Amino acid sequence: MSEFESGAATPASLENASPDGGKKAELDGGVSFDLLISLCKRRGFVFPGSEIYGGINALYDFGPLGVRLRRNIRQSWWNRMVERRGDIEPIETAIIMNREVWVASGHVGSFSDPLVECAACHRRWREDHLEDERRARGKTGAGCPECDGTLGESRKFNLMFRTFLGPVQDDLNEVFLRPETAQGQFVNFANILNSTRHSLPFGIAQTGKSFRNEISPGNFIFRSREFEQMEMEWFCEPGSDREWFEYWCDDRFAWYVDELGVRSARLRLRPHTREELSHYSAGTSDVEYLFPFGWGELEGIADRTDFDLGAHQQHSGKDLTYFDPATNRRFLPYVIETAVGVDRTLLVTLMDAYDEEEVRGEKRVLLRFHPAIAPFQLAILPLSKKPELTGLSLSLVERLRSRWSVDFDQTQSIGRRYRRQDEIGTPLAITVDFESLQDHAVTIRNRDTMAQVRVSIDRLEVAIGEQLAEAAQRVLARARGELPVN
Amino acid sequence: MSEFESGAATPASLENASPDGGKKAELDGGVSFDLLISLCKRRGFVFPGSEIYGGINALYDFGPLGVRLRRNIRQSWWNRMVERRGDIEPIETAIIMNREVWVASGHVGSFSDPLVECAACHRRWREDHLEDERRARGKTGAGCPECDGTLGESRKFNLMFRTFLGPVQDDLNEVFLRPETAQGQFVNFANILNSTRHSLPFGIAQTGKSFRNEISPGNFIFRSREFEQMEMEWFCEPGSDREWFEYWCDDRFAWYVDELGVRSARLRLRPHTREELSHYSAGTSDVEYLFPFGWGELEGIADRTDFDLGAHQQHSGKDLTYFDPATNRRFLPYVIETAVGVDRTLLVTLMDAYDEEEVRGEKRVLLRFHPAIAPFQLAILPLSKKPELTGLSLSLVERLRSRWSVDFDQTQSIGRRYRRQDEIGTPLAITVDFESLQDHAVTIRNRDTMAQVRVSIDRLEVAIGEQLAEAAQRVLARARGELPVN
Repeated sequence: MSEFESGAATPASLENASPDGGKKAELDGGVSFDLLISLCKRRGFVFPGSEIYGGINALYDFGPLGVRLRRNIRQSWWNRMVERRGDIEPIETAIIMNREVWVASGHVGSFSDPLVECAACHRRWREDHLEDERRARGKTGAGCPECDGTLGESRKFNLMFRTFLGPVQDDLNEVFLRPETAQGQFVNFANILNSTRHSLPFGIAQTGKSFRNEISPGNFIFRSREFEQMEMEWFCEPGSDREWFEYWCDDRFAWYVDELGVRSARLRLRPHTREELSHYSAGTSDVEYLFPFGWGELEGIADRTDFDLGAHQQHSGKDLTYFDPATNRRFLPYVIETAVGVDRTLLVTLMDAYDEEEVRGEKRVLLRFHPAIAPFQLAILPLSKKPELTGLSLSLVERLRSRWSVDFDQTQSIGRRYRRQDEIGTPLAITVDFESLQDHAVTIRNRDTMAQVRVSIDRLEVAIGEQLAEAAQRVLARARGELPVN
Repeated sequence: MSEFESGAATPASLENASPDGGKKAELDGGVSFDLLISLCKRRGFVFPGSEIYGGINALYDFGPLGVRLRRNIRQSWWNRMVERRGDIEPIETAIIMNREVWVASGHVGSFSDPLVECAACHRRWREDHLEDERRARGKTGAGCPECDGTLGESRKFNLMFRTFLGPVQDDLNEVFLRPETAQGQFVNFANILNSTRHSLPFGIAQTGKSFRNEISPGNFIFRSREFEQMEMEWFCEPGSDREWFEYWCDDRFAWYVDELGVRSARLRLRPHTREELSHYSAGTSDVEYLFPFGWGELEGIADRTDFDLGAHQQHSGKDLTYFDPATNRRFLPYVIETAVGVDRTLLVTLMDAYDEEEVRGEKRVLLRFHPAIAPFQLAILPLSKKPELTGLSLSLVERLRSRWSVDFDQTQSIGRRYRRQDEIGTPLAITVDFESLQDHAVTIRNRDTMAQVRVSIDRLEVAIGEQLAEAAQRVLARARGELPVN
């Protein structure tokens, strides 16, 4: 993710701010973090990590619904980036790589800047940025740029997690937990080329955990010390990179709206300013979402030129060039990178799907998930726990499970169970009642419209298919702004 | 995995050996590691980690075919353990957990035994096991139990990877990379219970990376320092545990044969002897595979009683009991654990599928994958690169991709391409030739039988469906021993 590269060691107050992030957004702030965190815990999307031991700062565990949502998000990305194409190859590289990888990439050098901490407000600052930070706040003197408090001695902070390979713990064995997955693609470029014999352009994609010992994690799962990335490196001929950069900006933006159903009014594609741009980047744009704290990065798309392959070629002494048989030329390909996190995407799909409305004087909370990413597409709810209803219900569960993900719930009143299914975003709830035993029909209740229709069990699959297709259309209309924002 | 619990700090010579592992297996040793490693690299299943920097000991990167195989293995496990059932909930917990988790589980205490190293053979021994090791080998004196060499001073070896949370590196911030996923299930037991309201028995399943700073990694990806587990904890009433233990032994064994197509003649279920059993375990059995080095563990199934929940309840001070409304009783559930690794399963599916035969005086290498786990189910091979054949071929790729995973290859001669598809285990290759443009038909070539049939493009899906079903039946007949072993 590009926020990492563009200075993760800046103070928290600046980290999440984009150039115009300070001004109040015209749209409302959406669901608050507090409300969402509470729903996530109560319903089993996200729990604080190691909670029975008082938690662990900025680390989270994902519960049953969170896992299903994560899986659907990953699958959606995989379908668009790998399975429906033929020109992107998947890879899964180890979290612990040879230390030299991070020397070549520049992470070892740039990720342990000396920081000083304020004794009063405990904010940490890069020592070499202190003057600038004071100037920006109109401060003079040698104190904390924020509160004028006394600054402690400067210390080296490692933003990469450091550990030791093998049972003996000494500096010779020092290794790091990867702070991004992308280096795996670069380091394996020649292996992929040789084993697949692709011609340019082609891509290498990877999903997996990365770790950053962030100084100021926060905003729930927005900035966490352990997170899961979905990164794709697109290798192309130098000179074609600008065109491919535009292509990937469009394609990646479209994913959020067209496949995840996120409202385009709350998304934007923001090109980096010249000041923000990494020294090697010929262009970077972020897909941003309007969070309660302002616009925040979801995905970075960057034209990285031949910076990465060049650095690894030089540092390893291995040939990483590509030979083009058509032109008889040998060169280092240019790279367009698309980098998104599973956790932030999950946060955005939850925030964006969240809705409240008043129904007969009571508040109804619902998640307007696209059916393709909803943890469950269907819920089967027998009206009572009587064995004859349970039996029929379970036979329906069995039958429908081969095509859709199905929840089964026979606890509590039917009203509370509808409310639960609304709150976890299940598009359709199917109620089995005593009449079902006579008329061989069940009731399909719709999350969005709350409409209920009686459907013969014989044609259940057809009815479900139609209603899910309608639900998808409704979500996409909302995402594209063809329906009111809320 | 249970090999971890039963003393990973024993010397390499003993680690992989099961009680009768010494005796020569009656079956042949199968494909050698060297042959397999070479195929894996050449075709893009597995690469040495960070290879351009000289690799990194016992860490591996997975290439395009390895990723597809891993995904299919994970999906097969997920389908059997979660999706086709209604009583197992998924969870994904952080790799970095609160340090207290590992104090309660006993890992902090037992995983840094003092070891001594032999100056001659460099084997490492647990200091407190030296006498036993010597006695087992009939040695006297104070030297190395293996070679009588001089032993160095004892040092503490951490088998858990140790790192530091937050930018300051001191002991107060010490955390570990999890050595197993299972503690995530125990620590979140109450959260899952509250958010899903399950009654006993039910399970919690998790897949994810774990890390062990193994002293003697080896045998390719069999024992690696970073690996991916698929663990399920089944919570049940005390007293019912023995029955559930038997159930899970049968169910897990069946997965390998019935769904992955591994030959049952090379699998066995081996109960641990009283000496091997962990102090808290009421019974453990391993699913083992006959590797070239002998029988090796694939999966451990263990009756862990209430050891884990009890330890966490005591250490955290949080109530982890279950209340049974039917009997009005409150108690700690017992746990049956099933623990398998993605990497070992991948290794076994590769080894077991590997086959060689002589065809017209030439060696044919093929992977007899079950179609459900083969990296590609189909390959579309146009006979030449002429645009009219490419066009028709790509339209078929497009059409078939919605139902099957499809490779497309138009390089090299058709013979070499068949050979490549055999070697990566693609059940069916579809050849598009110039006649296809006239007769609107293509040739389906079968991996196992090498039979070729001409099929009208109009009924291609039907023909493919039939041939894949036959291929699955053939693999399962081989797995169940209804066909010759090789």
